Amino acid sequence: MKRPTITDIAKEAGVSKGAVSYALNGRPGVSEATRQRITEIARELGWAPSSTARALSGGRTGAIGLVLDRPFEVVVPALLDGFPDELLIQVAAGRDAALAIHRRWRAERKVDGVLLTEPGCAAELVRIGLPAVVLGGPGGVPGVPSVRVDDATGAAEVLRYLAALGHRRVVRVAGAAVFADPAARHRAFPAGPAHPEPSADAVRRVLAGRPRPTALVCDTDGLAVAALAAARELGLAVPRDLSVVSWDDTSLCLLVRPALTAIRRPLGELGALAASVLHDLLAGEATGDVFASRPRLITRGSTGPAHA
Amino acid sequence: MKRPTITDIAKEAGVSKGAVSYALNGRPGVSEATRQRITEIARELGWAPSSTARALSGGRTGAIGLVLDRPFEVVVPALLDGFPDELLIQVAAGRDAALAIHRRWRAERKVDGVLLTEPGCAAELVRIGLPAVVLGGPGGVPGVPSVRVDDATGAAEVLRYLAALGHRRVVRVAGAAVFADPAARHRAFPAGPAHPEPSADAVRRVLAGRPRPTALVCDTDGLAVAALAAARELGLAVPRDLSVVSWDDTSLCLLVRPALTAIRRPLGELGALAASVLHDLLAGEATGDVFASRPRLITRGSTGPAHA
Repeated sequence: MKRPTITDIAKEAGVSKGAVSYALNGRPGVSEATRQRITEIARELGWAPSSTARALSGGRTGAIGLVLDRPFEVVVPALLDGFPDELLIQVAAGRDAALAIHRRWRAERKVDGVLLTEPGCAAELVRIGLPAVVLGGPGGVPGVPSVRVDDATGAAEVLRYLAALGHRRVVRVAGAAVFADPAARHRAFPAGPAHPEPSADAVRRVLAGRPRPTALVCDTDGLAVAALAAARELGLAVPRDLSVVSWDDTSLCLLVRPALTAIRRPLGELGALAASVLHDLLAGEATGDVFASRPRLITRGSTGPAHA
Repeated sequence: MKRPTITDIAKEAGVSKGAVSYALNGRPGVSEATRQRITEIARELGWAPSSTARALSGGRTGAIGLVLDRPFEVVVPALLDGFPDELLIQVAAGRDAALAIHRRWRAERKVDGVLLTEPGCAAELVRIGLPAVVLGGPGGVPGVPSVRVDDATGAAEVLRYLAALGHRRVVRVAGAAVFADPAARHRAFPAGPAHPEPSADAVRRVLAGRPRPTALVCDTDGLAVAALAAARELGLAVPRDLSVVSWDDTSLCLLVRPALTAIRRPLGELGALAASVLHDLLAGEATGDVFASRPRLITRGSTGPAHA
């Protein structure tokens, strides 16, 4: 008898796989009523949580691997938030080094599968038989599901919000967004060249454009904090002279003044969701791309009506 | 039939033993083409990666473990900076859960040793024979070396600096400092109760004290950013009415305005240093506590002469 998966539960409950994952992992993101209904259905279908499944399946290591090419300050803390499994991390620079580590992990059976921060070597992992899940996008990789954040929806919502405030010159400041599909974000909201490191200098250059933007939408919280610094240096009051929106909404957005309006991306969900998709894959489920819950716009003091 | 060695593979491939080792261990240092050729030859010769490598290295797994009781935003990125080994991370709340994971790792030989963020269960690990290194302090644990940051020196330096600027009412805002020995820090620079999460509210309460402090030394960068926010809300100009010093000097200090004067702690050294101490321990060396390089005071715009 086939082991039921979160896909089966989602189908039965008429909700997304993401919702099932939140419910069964005891995470926020679903109402209590939905959580109870999902838990009920899971029990009826005889779904066993991952630890049991692992014991039953035998031969699993229980560890999920992650090769990082630099110690991203947002990636790892976000992933670990509620991560149910052991995460084996190795720092390595470049695609070749990453591939070699993946091959070794596969040969030595050190991990059950891996998380990828971008899909560059996904096809190679399918070839060597190492189950993998991409954190971010773009999705559509055969055999390697992506756990995605719907940045297009986030972009549309912030553009609507700023337009309603009268902003006509809204510029996106591109940066090293994590768990993101740069191309999709660019399609949703075109931007100039990306700034891999947040810096006030970079934002000052953007603000030197004429006519000057009345609102900036920054790809990362670090860039948005840098935008507040650049505005201050240029004598621009936020939000009177310039509105600033951040894209992530880590705790930093609440610490600065004015507090940052932000597109809240569900970063804290991604680890548990990716682990759960990987478990489906290990159970032999043909699982496709999955979206985490929708980004939401959180308005705070850094945005206001356009005056210029 | 003799078991093939990396010497055999090197001879067959016409490369050095080092190159074979890099290729088979997934380390950078050989081209992708060479790596593929070496892997091919290893397979032809029937070389068994894990068993051989582990036999040669005395049953080592090559991985170092870390149980985290919450996904610290500073701990993990700092540790991974230059970390040479595989780091196996498991999130678990509380001492009992951490101990249970350590026991299982020991029993299953999943890691060669572990890093601890505090020495609470160090003695227990000595008892079960799991080599461990404490990140931070206080040190002095028999059999479990600590990798320490000299916060007392950092505190002394900042107090001298602020005194020279005429500050007589300097208050330390205590927080969730990482890789630190809270008692040593308290001895070097007493503070009120700690604020586990940085918040402007908490700092505002400190600034409500009379006579009002002329300088704040914050335990973490997050708290220092919150101090800038609190000052702004209270209409205090930094540094004219209030000097603010941070303790860590992550990239955040340069992003805010004014940029933060900070005690720069050598966080990026700790991971590699801890791994190297652990390797000494595994090699049977009796190694004691080790200090990372000295913290340095980096002065920026958030500190100035006392006027009040």
